[in-house]
Amino acid sequence: MKRLKILIVFAICSLMAMAQTIGVDMGEESRILRSPNENVFLMFNIANGKPYYRVAYKHTRVIHDSFLGLELAKSKYASKGKEETDLMDGFKLIDSKTSTFDETWKPVWGETEEIRNHYNELAVTLKQEKTNREMIIRFRVYDDGVGFRYEFPQQKDLNYFVIKEEHTQFKMTGDHKAWWLPGDYDTQEQETQESRLSEIRGKFHDAVNWGNSSVATFSETGVQTALQMKSDDGLYINIHEAACINYPTMHLNLDDKNMVFESWLTPDATGMKGYMQTPCQTPWRTILVSDDARDMLSSNLILNLNEPCKIEDTSWIHPTKYVGVWWEMIVGKSSWSYTDEYPSVKLGETDYSKAKPNGRHGATTANVKKYIDFAAENGIDQVLVEGWNIGWEDWIGHSKDYVFDFVTPYPDFDIAYLNKYAHEKGVKLMMHHETSSSTLNYERHLEKAFNLMNKYGYDAVKTGYVGDIIPRGEYHFSQPMNNHYMHVVKEAAKHHIMVNAHEAVRPTGLCRTYPNMVGNESARGTEYEAFGGSKPDHTVILPFTRLQGGPMDYTPGILETQLNTWSDNPNFVHTTLVGQLALYVTMYSPLQMVADLPENYKKYNDAFQFIKDVPCDWDRTIYLEAEPADYITVARRDKKTNDWYIGGKCDENGHKSVLKLDFLDENYSYDCTIYQDAKNAHYEKNPKAYKITHKKVKKGDVLKLTMAPGGGFAVSLEARWNGEERCEH
Amino acid sequence: MKRLKILIVFAICSLMAMAQTIGVDMGEESRILRSPNENVFLMFNIANGKPYYRVAYKHTRVIHDSFLGLELAKSKYASKGKEETDLMDGFKLIDSKTSTFDETWKPVWGETEEIRNHYNELAVTLKQEKTNREMIIRFRVYDDGVGFRYEFPQQKDLNYFVIKEEHTQFKMTGDHKAWWLPGDYDTQEQETQESRLSEIRGKFHDAVNWGNSSVATFSETGVQTALQMKSDDGLYINIHEAACINYPTMHLNLDDKNMVFESWLTPDATGMKGYMQTPCQTPWRTILVSDDARDMLSSNLILNLNEPCKIEDTSWIHPTKYVGVWWEMIVGKSSWSYTDEYPSVKLGETDYSKAKPNGRHGATTANVKKYIDFAAENGIDQVLVEGWNIGWEDWIGHSKDYVFDFVTPYPDFDIAYLNKYAHEKGVKLMMHHETSSSTLNYERHLEKAFNLMNKYGYDAVKTGYVGDIIPRGEYHFSQPMNNHYMHVVKEAAKHHIMVNAHEAVRPTGLCRTYPNMVGNESARGTEYEAFGGSKPDHTVILPFTRLQGGPMDYTPGILETQLNTWSDNPNFVHTTLVGQLALYVTMYSPLQMVADLPENYKKYNDAFQFIKDVPCDWDRTIYLEAEPADYITVARRDKKTNDWYIGGKCDENGHKSVLKLDFLDENYSYDCTIYQDAKNAHYEKNPKAYKITHKKVKKGDVLKLTMAPGGGFAVSLEARWNGEERCEH
Repeated sequence: MKRLKILIVFAICSLMAMAQTIGVDMGEESRILRSPNENVFLMFNIANGKPYYRVAYKHTRVIHDSFLGLELAKSKYASKGKEETDLMDGFKLIDSKTSTFDETWKPVWGETEEIRNHYNELAVTLKQEKTNREMIIRFRVYDDGVGFRYEFPQQKDLNYFVIKEEHTQFKMTGDHKAWWLPGDYDTQEQETQESRLSEIRGKFHDAVNWGNSSVATFSETGVQTALQMKSDDGLYINIHEAACINYPTMHLNLDDKNMVFESWLTPDATGMKGYMQTPCQTPWRTILVSDDARDMLSSNLILNLNEPCKIEDTSWIHPTKYVGVWWEMIVGKSSWSYTDEYPSVKLGETDYSKAKPNGRHGATTANVKKYIDFAAENGIDQVLVEGWNIGWEDWIGHSKDYVFDFVTPYPDFDIAYLNKYAHEKGVKLMMHHETSSSTLNYERHLEKAFNLMNKYGYDAVKTGYVGDIIPRGEYHFSQPMNNHYMHVVKEAAKHHIMVNAHEAVRPTGLCRTYPNMVGNESARGTEYEAFGGSKPDHTVILPFTRLQGGPMDYTPGILETQLNTWSDNPNFVHTTLVGQLALYVTMYSPLQMVADLPENYKKYNDAFQFIKDVPCDWDRTIYLEAEPADYITVARRDKKTNDWYIGGKCDENGHKSVLKLDFLDENYSYDCTIYQDAKNAHYEKNPKAYKITHKKVKKGDVLKLTMAPGGGFAVSLEARWNGEERCEH
Repeated sequence: MKRLKILIVFAICSLMAMAQTIGVDMGEESRILRSPNENVFLMFNIANGKPYYRVAYKHTRVIHDSFLGLELAKSKYASKGKEETDLMDGFKLIDSKTSTFDETWKPVWGETEEIRNHYNELAVTLKQEKTNREMIIRFRVYDDGVGFRYEFPQQKDLNYFVIKEEHTQFKMTGDHKAWWLPGDYDTQEQETQESRLSEIRGKFHDAVNWGNSSVATFSETGVQTALQMKSDDGLYINIHEAACINYPTMHLNLDDKNMVFESWLTPDATGMKGYMQTPCQTPWRTILVSDDARDMLSSNLILNLNEPCKIEDTSWIHPTKYVGVWWEMIVGKSSWSYTDEYPSVKLGETDYSKAKPNGRHGATTANVKKYIDFAAENGIDQVLVEGWNIGWEDWIGHSKDYVFDFVTPYPDFDIAYLNKYAHEKGVKLMMHHETSSSTLNYERHLEKAFNLMNKYGYDAVKTGYVGDIIPRGEYHFSQPMNNHYMHVVKEAAKHHIMVNAHEAVRPTGLCRTYPNMVGNESARGTEYEAFGGSKPDHTVILPFTRLQGGPMDYTPGILETQLNTWSDNPNFVHTTLVGQLALYVTMYSPLQMVADLPENYKKYNDAFQFIKDVPCDWDRTIYLEAEPADYITVARRDKKTNDWYIGGKCDENGHKSVLKLDFLDENYSYDCTIYQDAKNAHYEKNPKAYKITHKKVKKGDVLKLTMAPGGGFAVSLEARWNGEERCEH
């Protein structure tokens, strides 16, 4: 009995100690939850019927009291004949359950061979007595952050409802530094801005990508997720979402007086935000937190909050390196279109056999053969061909409905011959489906388009969503469009087709569930280097932001960074040549483009060796150094061998790295090849100055490497067995 | 030389005579056009750069000077970077061409075996010098009216444009009597209103069908087409449209001070009205005119303005009589849904095998067999089955996206067995695809749904579009939705499937081009008799209005007009029993339902004989009497025999007909069976009082028949060869 009392006293003291450091509200409805290692702490409570939560990390507050709830539309679809009540207040806690989960799973592809999913869970059931409705808020606390979502069980008085707005708050503890993109319903291709939260409003207008084919901002303090922040007390905080399915994409709108972010969903054409049918739930709202920036990059919280793989046979899904008839069009040297004769075309009516070719068409049989040969010679798996199909003459800017049929090649693209030719050389063609955002048209042709791919042996498609959506009035990131992207991924899986969607919604870890979603663009890709450039720190912020939800088809590998050396394009790539090599390691993706032209690689054949060698599937990953928008250094082990690769990338200020190779296997020695910026290298003034050195290294050795402004380094470490020679007879 | 002068003087005098009667504006840009028989007269001219036209019939003005033009959206898709100029004024006539056309064509099915398409044409090419754009207005003048449309040739400065509004005027010559429906973007299921034009505004609100599942009115003087009018000088005038393809449906908005109707198109979700790519054209705007109401009904002007048949092999298209598991649900005795257990269902998740049947499900194997047996016994071709597929538990009122899959039967509907059973008896099942207006979902499942139909031998589908459209924000009659309906018809044709679309857009003669479009609802059908009733004159106005564009699946044949005799439904059908028989002749359709229950037909077996006998395909049709909303009497000859059928239908006032049978063939005598209202019959007080008489008649005989209030008559004339007996050895 005495022992029990001591225990109780101890428990209370412990609780009070916590209460002091991060502030626990006591009371009947207060619930607390800690992460497995106790670093992350969450409190849930209800104040005057309104649910709220609070988060701390170690002894520091991360999220101040933040309310949770949803505003419902007074829609005729909601609850017939009566005024709709919001799911914002009037709640009582009627049940709460805690549990622990610990499981290790193997992704089909990824940065590591295994992923541990270890969290403590708290599920609170709230009842709104006035409406007789119940809602569950489920919290999962990991060692590197928190995820929570709203769940709506099927119940007598809640079967259908329409969301006017979700009001999930994230109350910041100060005027943090943030790396943000302007919130936009249609594009994610802005430059990342670095500023204090209080400076967002002033910088907003200039941050908008006004030149994009589709722009829809909504608030001068509205930003996108994943939003990376850093507090003055040294905490890295990242807000995003996981498993966004049958729901609009979330933005964050900042109350910049009180530093409270609130969810701001993407509306549909009618301004409504979500049509819900119980049982259902929102996506997970995620908060990563650590005092070490590297934890932001190694976190698997978002993948873990997604459902396990739903594709039974995944044997046909494979990491892929590819070249493409693409960069020459982006730069402006060749064209997607076949002819310049027609001011507009109508598929099925326009007779291309009578059209005069413009002489600049990229996707010709001869040109594609050149790329196939190049891929075969260099062990590259696939060749993307854009502009192969009819309709490119007027594909953009006209809100044209029937813009492509996805099955009819231009007269100068011999689809049967080229696929046969490629297959004979061990190479595959990669399909391209630009939809011009006419999603209805794409869906009408989807089955035939996939059948054509199956017929000719394509197993991967790059899709595109340039321009305003048709059905007109819809936005790229609304619930109906998010459902469209998922529809395509699911239908593709039935055809054993991998999907790499460009301009589609930013990912939220759905590739765990549908690993045929091998890539997305959903951010400012390398193409912008040909449109005026991206800032040198662009690729050292993307892994903190855009890549949280899944891999990006960033299309690195532009070794001829000065475009005017081979084209009329006056722009240059804002990295050094070596910086481009580094991206194959620092920007994880199972799909890696080798984006430059074959003739440009021939000019830098020794540096190109790294691109040939570097794999795109890994079994171990160690982030060695990281600071948002400054530098990232990461080591990864090839899934198929014991070879390691290290990539380092930095911003315009350069960076010096001291890398202790203590992660290597002591049973091996390593043939180390180092691709480095030369001493006077500079992304603008001297981008192609590099040196390549070879040496032997072993576990515990130290590499001291210097990255030039806008540069980086790339290291390959080929493993050689140290032990006794094994008998081969 | 003198002769020429005389001719010129004569020509001028003739022109001036015309100018006096209907008023021809002289001038450089004035053009006139007369119908082949010279009854219909059209003038085109330009006033201060604005095109206008005028129409007369015989010596009476029909349409006063009415302007023509289109207002373009200041859309970013229109002409990039410059302010868009409307296609309303600034025009000069730069070319005009006249021609004559005379051709006879055979419809796949129809009221007559052949249709003569005979018109004079005037095409004026207008140039808007400010924009360097050309537009053609093409007029076709028939003996019974006028059609005209705008054409936009492909040209340097007009490739894409967005229509904000079409401003086609129809200036009436007086305050005509009109039979109108309130203009509505979503429904056509109102009661027809009879009033002066000036009275529309006052009657508008009460005329709206507020109880419909989807309502979207736009103006208190906005009305639908086909709009039937009658002028005080005895002219019948009808305004509608023909060949509405890739364009929104037109309404008419009345300036009731000046009696000017102006086109008012159905917007899309963004409020825009038409996305156009040249070369393209608007639908035809049609004006029927005659001093004989029967000409309104016999006119083929709208069919003639449509393109010839685009389906090469039409052998699989056939007129069809059908029964259906339908009326029992409409009346409320059985249900579409299988269970009452679930407040909502999710296809693919809800397990129907575990659901408790509600005991009222109509589409059970046993019940469908009963209908198949009945059809087989009575020579009826097909059996429609509604409620056969999962999803009906929550199909309406929730804006539910994935509402049906169109392929999964309820557990108690044995699709394989029932089709086999039916086919063995020479009967086919008819498919039902209610989309719940979730058109995107329907398109996603269309191919699989049609494949299922092909697999089991269905060759006709009744589709339905109840409720608000998904994609949300769209209207039933917008350009994207009109394109959807056409998409379904075309895809169905590839599968040799006939389509009968309910709640879809009102037809505009497209069944000439796509004769697998065998029916539409697109108006207030018989079902409303179970929802409270339609006025007795309803079926004597529909042929003047709704039927102008194509046949209606009106679902006649309710012989047990008093629903409470066999159900809990307190309503009654607002015709006599004989009136229901008459509809098979007066309401032309190649698809005729035999809508009542088998057990009800057994109660009136002698009257049912007419329904068994009456065909639904004809080679001759003669409208004997007609007055809008008062009475219609029509004689039709069976396409397969020499038998004639006569139907007469009237409003609540009854009607006496004297029918001279001078259209019969003198080489035949006829076994005449007359189905008549009994003396004291009345649609409400004594609806089922009828008498059936038999006699022999021949060409030239006279039938004197009396229709009861809300009644009618039906006559079958079986042809017997009069001539010498033919040797059969």
